[in-house]
This record gives sequence, structure tokens and C-alpha cells, in this order.
Amino acid sequence: MVYIGFDVGGTGVQVGIVSREGEILCKGGIVTRIDIPFAEQVKAMADCALVTLAKSGYSLDDVAAVGAGIPGVVDPRTGHIAFCPNLGWKDVDFAGEMKKHINKPVFMDNDATVAGLAESVAGVSAGTHSSVFLTLGTGVGGGIVLGGKVWSGFHGVGSEIGHMIIEMDGKDCNCDNRGCLERYCSATGIILSARAAVMQYQDSAIMVKAEGDPMKINAKIVFDAAKEGDELALRLFADYVKALATTIVNIIHVIDPEVIALGGGVSKAGDFLLDAVRAEVAKMVMYKTMPYARIEIARLGPDAGIIGAAMLGL
Amino acid sequence: MVYIGFDVGGTGVQVGIVSREGEILCKGGIVTRIDIPFAEQVKAMADCALVTLAKSGYSLDDVAAVGAGIPGVVDPRTGHIAFCPNLGWKDVDFAGEMKKHINKPVFMDNDATVAGLAESVAGVSAGTHSSVFLTLGTGVGGGIVLGGKVWSGFHGVGSEIGHMIIEMDGKDCNCDNRGCLERYCSATGIILSARAAVMQYQDSAIMVKAEGDPMKINAKIVFDAAKEGDELALRLFADYVKALATTIVNIIHVIDPEVIALGGGVSKAGDFLLDAVRAEVAKMVMYKTMPYARIEIARLGPDAGIIGAAMLGL
Repeated sequence: MVYIGFDVGGTGVQVGIVSREGEILCKGGIVTRIDIPFAEQVKAMADCALVTLAKSGYSLDDVAAVGAGIPGVVDPRTGHIAFCPNLGWKDVDFAGEMKKHINKPVFMDNDATVAGLAESVAGVSAGTHSSVFLTLGTGVGGGIVLGGKVWSGFHGVGSEIGHMIIEMDGKDCNCDNRGCLERYCSATGIILSARAAVMQYQDSAIMVKAEGDPMKINAKIVFDAAKEGDELALRLFADYVKALATTIVNIIHVIDPEVIALGGGVSKAGDFLLDAVRAEVAKMVMYKTMPYARIEIARLGPDAGIIGAAMLGL
Repeated sequence: MVYIGFDVGGTGVQVGIVSREGEILCKGGIVTRIDIPFAEQVKAMADCALVTLAKSGYSLDDVAAVGAGIPGVVDPRTGHIAFCPNLGWKDVDFAGEMKKHINKPVFMDNDATVAGLAESVAGVSAGTHSSVFLTLGTGVGGGIVLGGKVWSGFHGVGSEIGHMIIEMDGKDCNCDNRGCLERYCSATGIILSARAAVMQYQDSAIMVKAEGDPMKINAKIVFDAAKEGDELALRLFADYVKALATTIVNIIHVIDPEVIALGGGVSKAGDFLLDAVRAEVAKMVMYKTMPYARIEIARLGPDAGIIGAAMLGL
């Protein structure tokens, strides 16, 4: 049997035909169009999946289930997608609509959650008892897998780890609260902090790399300047590590998973980030002599969305 | 069948014979003695349980299992109690020692965790899909129950919600970190904040109730003064509610349980506390139109420790 996985994004929908082991056998994709009705959006997705399925050499008889990772909220009480702002969806019956074209069981969950599931099936946390996945990208998302199953909570509003408040009265977040992790550890957060800071440190290597234009600063520039020993960049990097380590320690002291995996664009900093975070976490865990979660960089990259969506059907 | 539950505390050990439904059929207790060897401590506990069992009218043949709630850490890899500072226990084989006297399956977990389990079997979160329990006492403890089962994590260091950091660089905590919930929402935390504050507000109703002696301030005095409208007490109460609401919102955005139950001495403030916390949480949840966890006061009081310990054997 094979599984169809949709990774639904703001600019495009990727689809994959995925094996039981989490291997992508064939991939396709379409551009997201928010100017057409919901039913037509879903039909275009189904058509793309059927073409990709044919290319893979499998037929509908071989398909066990369809899954979709959605940048939004799924209401587990109704099975409806409650919100998906990027696509203009609100309380839509995605499963019902999809089944008109591909009559198989349809599963949905949040995009960061399915990426975490993918890592737990075919990535860095494969074979583990429990794992928490953090996507450090434009925003910060979370995925929780307990006993091999996705944990999104009772009302479907859980695993939003990017909105864990780590500093009461801290920095303003888009969600209207203050002090959310996302404001400290997303690429956007790094950029905002760096732009504000370079005003006072015009001679920072960050400004050199950004060709003197604060609007050209990105997370990679800041981390690269830190690697080279630039004073301001090192300070921004230390702030980043401290906020991320605080969150990881909170996850350890609450959920205590076997593995905590870091994915998303910022995680491409690799060992430079990982070594610093591990050192900071070691200082902060409460029971110094007890083992605690391994902290690792995620392995699957952008394919995690397709793989995890498909694996919802397992 | 009945279950033996031990609530192991720093000053005494309570034992109960408990029905499958979580009803205490008979209770007993001994004073904790840390001046005798571990084996003798356990023998005294077992003797007390056997006497209580006889009083209850049941025999050893009726006992399905023995459980103990421990103010410490259980290592799930070995089944040993890793730490129990109050009793001077470190890496002791409690189950092995207990079985020498009562040869039944023996289960252990953290005291706050078993209290949460008790509430989920016979208290305010009975019959729910998932619940998180917070004990607001001298310290702050946490218990997580998912799908009817205690979740203490992979390494046994989870559900320490009192040490969730909610304010980076915040108030110093006993655990050597800064900004832990416990420092804001334990009775101890309230007392420390109130003692510091009354220095500047000598005419506060808090000082009147404490007979002019800051050392006599306790959490009840502060909350009672707040109920009467005292300005300083209301400010301390608002700070308390804000920190607790922040933690609850973090629990909602990460675990998203069906119920969040508040127990421990401070929760005796009842509706005065509950109404304020619910109002603050409502302002802070991210998805305003989605349902989220009910917030309730725990029901079982001090018996929760015995009941939950017994229910570990279910």
C-alpha cells in the first residue's frame, strides 16, 4: 500500500506518493490559487495527486489513505479545517471535498505537527518513544509525537509551541500576547532584533554582509557574522540560544520526550547552533544527574511536510 | 479487588485501601522517620498498610496492586526512586523492598502526578480525555494524564510544571534557574513577594491581618486582603493571576488538555481565584473562537495523594 501526502503551503501545494516506511516514491505540485472557490482548489489538488500517482506506477487500489499538512488549525471535533488564513479557508470540510475525487480515508493536521511526525517515522526521531519537533523558520511551529501518534490536543489547539510565553511582559508577538518564543527564535525575530541593534553598531560585520542596508539582514547573515566572532552578532546569537534553551528546558520539564528535534531554515546553522543550545540546556536542567531528551537537528528538510502528511494515515 | 495507596510526605506517610472507583475504604498513617534505614522505613509502611487492610475487612488476596506517590523522581528505566530528598532516599529499590512484605505489583510516581491521576479517576477531571493538574502549595507541582494514563515522560523528569520558566531573567528560583512558575504561584512565592512589598506599604490590610509582623504573612492573608479591596493585596493578587494564567495558556498552547485542574492550599481561594484566572486566560488564548481547556478547582483535597497512588495500579 502507498499513502498520498499533501503539504499545503501559502504559495504552493506539494504532493507525494509515500511508502509505508516514509519514502517519497513520486512527487508533484501545483501553485496555490486563492482566487478560486474552495471546491476548485481541492479538485486541483486531487487532480495533481492522481497524475502523480499514475507517474509512480501505482493505482488508486494501492492507496491506503490521504493526508494533508495544513498551515492552520484542524478542529478534531468536526474533522473540519477551522482556519487556514493563507488559503482563505475557514471551517471547511476538506475531507468531505477530497473524498469526492479520491474516496479514501482523509486525515489532516497542522503542518509543523506533520513534519514532526515525519521525523518520528523516517527522520532523526525514528523509533523513539516520544519526540517534540520545533520548526525554526519564518515563524516557529511545533509538533508533538507520543507513543508513535501525533498529539494535537483535545481541542486541536495544542502543539503551538511558538506561542509558549517565555518572558512575561516581553517582546510583542503577532498573536497579541507578549514574550512568545516565536518572537525570539523565528528568522523574523532575529531579523527584527538585528535591525534594531545595528542602528547602534553601524560597524558590525552584520552591516558589511548586508551591504549597509538593514533591510537586507537575514538570519543567516547574523549567524555567519557570529561564527566569525563579530561582537554584536555574538550577542544576538547568545540571546537566541538562551531563548531556545529556555523553551527546550520547559519542554523537558513538562513533556520530557525522548528526542527534541530542531528543523526549519534557522536549523541549517547546524552544529554551531546545536552545540551552543546543548551547552545552555545542560546548565539549566533541574535534575543534573538524570538523563534527559537528546537534542538533534531534523533530517528530512522540506520533504518532511509531504512525508508526515502521508504518515497521518498509518 | 482493592488497591493500596501510599502518600509519602516529608512529615508522614498516609495509606489507604482504595476501591477500583477511587473511593477510600479505610485509612491509616505513620510518622516519617528519616533516622532509620530505608529497609526499616519501608517495613513500617508495609506494616501500617497491612493493619489498615485488616481494618477494612479485606485480605491480601483482595489486593490487586500497591502504589506510592513520592515527593521526588522515579527513574522509569530502572523502576527505582532516583531522588526523594525529604526522606533521604537516593536510587533506592522501593518496589523490591516493598514486595518483601506485600508481594503484589508495585507502582510509583511523583506526588503531584498521582494527585492529578486521582482527580482524573474520581475528581474534577473524571471521564475526560486528558487533564493537567497543578498543585498550588508550598511549591508548585504538576500532573499530566493523557488518555487515562499518567504521563511522566520518557526519562521520568517530566510534569515538573512548577519549573516552567515564564519569565526569562525573572525571579530567582530554588532550582538555580530564574523565572520559574513556582517562584510566582506557590504560597512561598506569594509570601516572599508580600513581605518585600509591605516594607513600602506599612498601612496595607495585609500588615493588619499579620498583626504588624511580616513573618506572619501567609497566602490566605494576602488573598483575604485582596477580597476586601486592599490596594497592595490586589496588586499582588493580579501579579499572581497573571503568572498563573500565563502558565495555563502555555499548557493550552502546548498540551491542550480537556481540563486544567487547580489544587493545593492556594486553590482554596476558590471562585475568587478561578474567576480571575479564567478571565485572564480568555484574553490570552490565541484562537479566540476555538474551544479550549476548562479550568476548574480540584475536588479531592488531601486525599488525592492516597487515591492517585492506589490508582497507579489500575
